[in-house]
Amino acid sequence: MAAARHSTLDFMLGAKADGETILKGLQSIFQEQGMAESVHTWQNHGYLATYTNKNGSFANLRIYPHGLVLLDLQSYDGDARGKEEIDSILNKVEERMKELSQDSTGRVKRLPPIVRGGAIDRYWPTADGHLGEYDIDEVVYDEDSPYQNIKILHSKQFGNILILSGDVNLAESDLAYTRAIMGSGKEDSTGKDVLILGGGYGGILCEIVKLKPKMVTMVLIEDCIPVLKRYAKEGREFDYVINDLTAVPISMSPEEDSIWEFLRLILDLSMKVLKQDGKYFTQGNCVNLTEALSLYEEQLGRLYCPVEFSKEIVCVPSYLELWVFYTVWKKAKP
Amino acid sequence: MAAARHSTLDFMLGAKADGETILKGLQSIFQEQGMAESVHTWQNHGYLATYTNKNGSFANLRIYPHGLVLLDLQSYDGDARGKEEIDSILNKVEERMKELSQDSTGRVKRLPPIVRGGAIDRYWPTADGHLGEYDIDEVVYDEDSPYQNIKILHSKQFGNILILSGDVNLAESDLAYTRAIMGSGKEDSTGKDVLILGGGYGGILCEIVKLKPKMVTMVLIEDCIPVLKRYAKEGREFDYVINDLTAVPISMSPEEDSIWEFLRLILDLSMKVLKQDGKYFTQGNCVNLTEALSLYEEQLGRLYCPVEFSKEIVCVPSYLELWVFYTVWKKAKP
Repeated sequence: MAAARHSTLDFMLGAKADGETILKGLQSIFQEQGMAESVHTWQNHGYLATYTNKNGSFANLRIYPHGLVLLDLQSYDGDARGKEEIDSILNKVEERMKELSQDSTGRVKRLPPIVRGGAIDRYWPTADGHLGEYDIDEVVYDEDSPYQNIKILHSKQFGNILILSGDVNLAESDLAYTRAIMGSGKEDSTGKDVLILGGGYGGILCEIVKLKPKMVTMVLIEDCIPVLKRYAKEGREFDYVINDLTAVPISMSPEEDSIWEFLRLILDLSMKVLKQDGKYFTQGNCVNLTEALSLYEEQLGRLYCPVEFSKEIVCVPSYLELWVFYTVWKKAKP
Repeated sequence: MAAARHSTLDFMLGAKADGETILKGLQSIFQEQGMAESVHTWQNHGYLATYTNKNGSFANLRIYPHGLVLLDLQSYDGDARGKEEIDSILNKVEERMKELSQDSTGRVKRLPPIVRGGAIDRYWPTADGHLGEYDIDEVVYDEDSPYQNIKILHSKQFGNILILSGDVNLAESDLAYTRAIMGSGKEDSTGKDVLILGGGYGGILCEIVKLKPKMVTMVLIEDCIPVLKRYAKEGREFDYVINDLTAVPISMSPEEDSIWEFLRLILDLSMKVLKQDGKYFTQGNCVNLTEALSLYEEQLGRLYCPVEFSKEIVCVPSYLELWVFYTVWKKAKP
């Protein structure tokens, strides 16, 4: 399906905008393209000029009286002539605006154009809600399971990226994630008994077997709660428990108490199957979601046994934001 | 200055768009807000409906006949009621569109809103031209020098970021850069003679003195060409030359031959002041600019003495893209 290309060009003038003059000054650029004009005038909020082209493209020129002039251009994507046409309009507008506002120093901003409605979706927000554009060149897989939408998109630089219901999970470039959730090389796993909760992409298992552990148990597609309960009942204990199961909830509204209780249940059960000198590793959240991180740390203070923890900030390449990882251990008995 | 908030909501329908029905179906949502409608109809390219609100905000509804429906909403930023109003419109449109297209499965995409014309500019493209939004919360410094625009912006997660003429140079989070341009810990700098070209942010100097070199010479604000020529004439040689001077040019047009010649001149002079068993370190470019990287490697084959090189791909946190670093050394004499 043909996508649309949306270009923007913004002027932050150093002074109030003389709307009439700007409108008249730029008009001819659009008219030269054979675009039809329609202008809406506010009493106190400036102007909106809309220019439509026969080929289906259109432009919006919004002049805010306090000195902000925003131009939007939308056209069919993938049309080389159309792209040239748009770039030419943008260049001409930028040039003309410089002439029109010679006295007032201001700022100009042209963002990379946004491709909207393309077969390949390149835009995935970070966990803290920022816009991120990826160099996706292929949709490898895109299906709805009974539980979530599963996408595997190929990025030129990050390799295949797993995206679950719109949430960037992990990419082939992200060994840093796997290393961090295994304790960042500070532990000696040789001969150790390891429990992995989740870890469905297989990276942790792949890396940890290189370290010659005695045994690795991976609870992957099963519900881990009854498994942990059974282990606890049997008195089975592990040197390391790696929780790669669930992300810390992003929202902190009161109705989500139950999510925290669920997380705490898993934490409690994990502590029960952890040796006294064992270590529990997990990922936390992006560094910017400080409130969610604090709430998680609060849960650590409410477990059945006293624990201590350390955290590490790690750059996971495909995340486009820094991520917090936790190591939790039982407090030494006095 | 009041900025504008630009929100988008995109529908990729699974079938051709029935423009009339969609227009009529959504109309009331905008009319309920007291927005005035104006519709442009193309013969073959669908519809553009523009809705203007008395408070200065406006919406564009573009219906492409092949099944793409794009909504844009622009309003003053920083107005809590305005934000609620916009979110309410977006939610209602999403809901109504679901009702209208019950038979055709499609995709819906809502990007994080773009803040345009704000006092703090959060949008800085990557070297390969992708859109990146940073968590900037403070403009620490913003001045034009005789050579370039110098910005220091504070990011919540990356710390202070140095941006030269719109190009993200380095942030406080980016020790990975400094480590990589020092050879990624593979070299023993103890007692060594080191030459740094550029390195103006001081990170390399700060890190390398920790490694107890014999002597570090930093050619920072001087033109390094005459300095290198003098060293070469004097027969002065270094164990390590770290070139943190210039980025590899991104554009590869023929008129830029002179830039490659300039780069090659510095490379040649650097090789002249490098011991036979010395190492030359430099940053290359982002991994995606493969053509620029190839051209750089081509230059390495055209130096006065035969050289070999290795490269490493490194994740520099604030870059939001992977970066290539080079190590170059003189070919062993036969």
